[in-house]
Amino acid sequence: MRIAKRWRVRRLTAGGGVRERADVLAGEEPLEVRVDGRSYAVTMRTPGHDVELVAGFLVSEGVVAAADDVLRMDDRAGVTPSGERDRNVLDVRLAPGVAGPEESRHRHVYTTSSCGVCGTASIDAVRTVSRFDVAADDVVVPLRTLLGLPDRLRAEQELFGRTGGVHAAALLALPGPGDDDAADGTLLCVREDVGRHNAVDKVVGWALLAGRLPLRRTVLQVSGRASFELVQKAAMAGIPVLSAVSAPSALAVELGEELGVTVVGFNRGDALNVYSRPERVVG
Amino acid sequence: MRIAKRWRVRRLTAGGGVRERADVLAGEEPLEVRVDGRSYAVTMRTPGHDVELVAGFLVSEGVVAAADDVLRMDDRAGVTPSGERDRNVLDVRLAPGVAGPEESRHRHVYTTSSCGVCGTASIDAVRTVSRFDVAADDVVVPLRTLLGLPDRLRAEQELFGRTGGVHAAALLALPGPGDDDAADGTLLCVREDVGRHNAVDKVVGWALLAGRLPLRRTVLQVSGRASFELVQKAAMAGIPVLSAVSAPSALAVELGEELGVTVVGFNRGDALNVYSRPERVVG
Repeated sequence: MRIAKRWRVRRLTAGGGVRERADVLAGEEPLEVRVDGRSYAVTMRTPGHDVELVAGFLVSEGVVAAADDVLRMDDRAGVTPSGERDRNVLDVRLAPGVAGPEESRHRHVYTTSSCGVCGTASIDAVRTVSRFDVAADDVVVPLRTLLGLPDRLRAEQELFGRTGGVHAAALLALPGPGDDDAADGTLLCVREDVGRHNAVDKVVGWALLAGRLPLRRTVLQVSGRASFELVQKAAMAGIPVLSAVSAPSALAVELGEELGVTVVGFNRGDALNVYSRPERVVG
Repeated sequence: MRIAKRWRVRRLTAGGGVRERADVLAGEEPLEVRVDGRSYAVTMRTPGHDVELVAGFLVSEGVVAAADDVLRMDDRAGVTPSGERDRNVLDVRLAPGVAGPEESRHRHVYTTSSCGVCGTASIDAVRTVSRFDVAADDVVVPLRTLLGLPDRLRAEQELFGRTGGVHAAALLALPGPGDDDAADGTLLCVREDVGRHNAVDKVVGWALLAGRLPLRRTVLQVSGRASFELVQKAAMAGIPVLSAVSAPSALAVELGEELGVTVVGFNRGDALNVYSRPERVVG
């Protein structure tokens, strides 16, 4: 199937209408991530930009933080039961000296005895620690730029336009003092996926491979809600501002407050809410 | 925080308005699932109905299929670093003779050498096999009943009404031939969660504990999209019809076709699409 697939569908309306028609569905397939030949994780994703997806996923997991940490991405490591190449397997070879996922988790996962965010022990299993200090990022985002982001994201959502069924993430770079860049910033990268987290990982992986981490002076715009994990992914990549079309969760906001990520929610084009570090958004 | 939390938020409008106000955020906390004392999984969820969530999760994983398979659910097994009870840990004691997750995966996870759905090997890691034959369910759903479901679900979404930021799942029982039940069915259970999958697991877990599996002659209505995993969860619980407000993925529809689950998408109240087993929906 890959990125999209045509399917015969029966459409029924309240008035009694019945018709068969062709519909386009978003692709969804499992991707097995291997690290140095060993199976590490399987994620359901929309095929396409797999190398970026895996690179971004490893940033989120605290395994890599620079393009040099990855020696090679091998998309020919998998073999199907019938002996053909399995396009749903990607093997990452880490550079010499880069610790694998097991060791990285010990090193980069939250392990203090009391969690400031939710006071629970099990948070240790999901909490990672960023090597970048997003709290110190002195970026300032014009409100008008922020309000315009959902429309700019939507205009780039090619697969959503055909299927109505995928999430998206976009990365916006803001001009620094004295920069010649456009005042409303430059859209660096837009990615789509059936999974919210995957769309963000694809964007972060693109940035890693382009040698752009940490992503100072950027905004990550997402199509859905802002969960704990999305705020964490932003922090792992050094992104200081996360903007969501829908609501953030309580834990997402608390993590944003603790790490210094500006969390914006309900960004619907004419108004928005700022939940943490609001001084970065200026009118 | 638990189910919901109040938070001070700064609201900015395009016209230049700025005001501080109190907002309500949906709770999100990690839940550690232990099976017979051993840590098995950690999921980010909205606290509440944790016992049902874990029960449904174990149905989805192929570990349990009847209330008797569970001996006890212990929510006092966890201790925080400061010595208090950790409400984010739930320990499941399986009944004697019920195989744990490791052994269950071997027994109930898809392991034939060619996957009919996507022709990949890594699908083995995510595909489970249901003990119930949903294809044989001869349920017939009136179109009017199906079109009315999103509104009935929405009317029960207490947390969404306060936060605008949670998913929901509802289980509808349809009357059998000769039954006295209401013609448009009975809403058995509605659950909310920041995670789409969790809301479904909570509904399925409720049914397991009530001794109602397999869920013959039922419809599962979900607030978002229909992914591969949601179709699989429906099949694991014996639910013959899955209806989503948004789009299904290609793999969701292909799995529905293979297993005999009727997949309905874009159910917006005045029209809907049927992607698989359409003969069950009658005008």
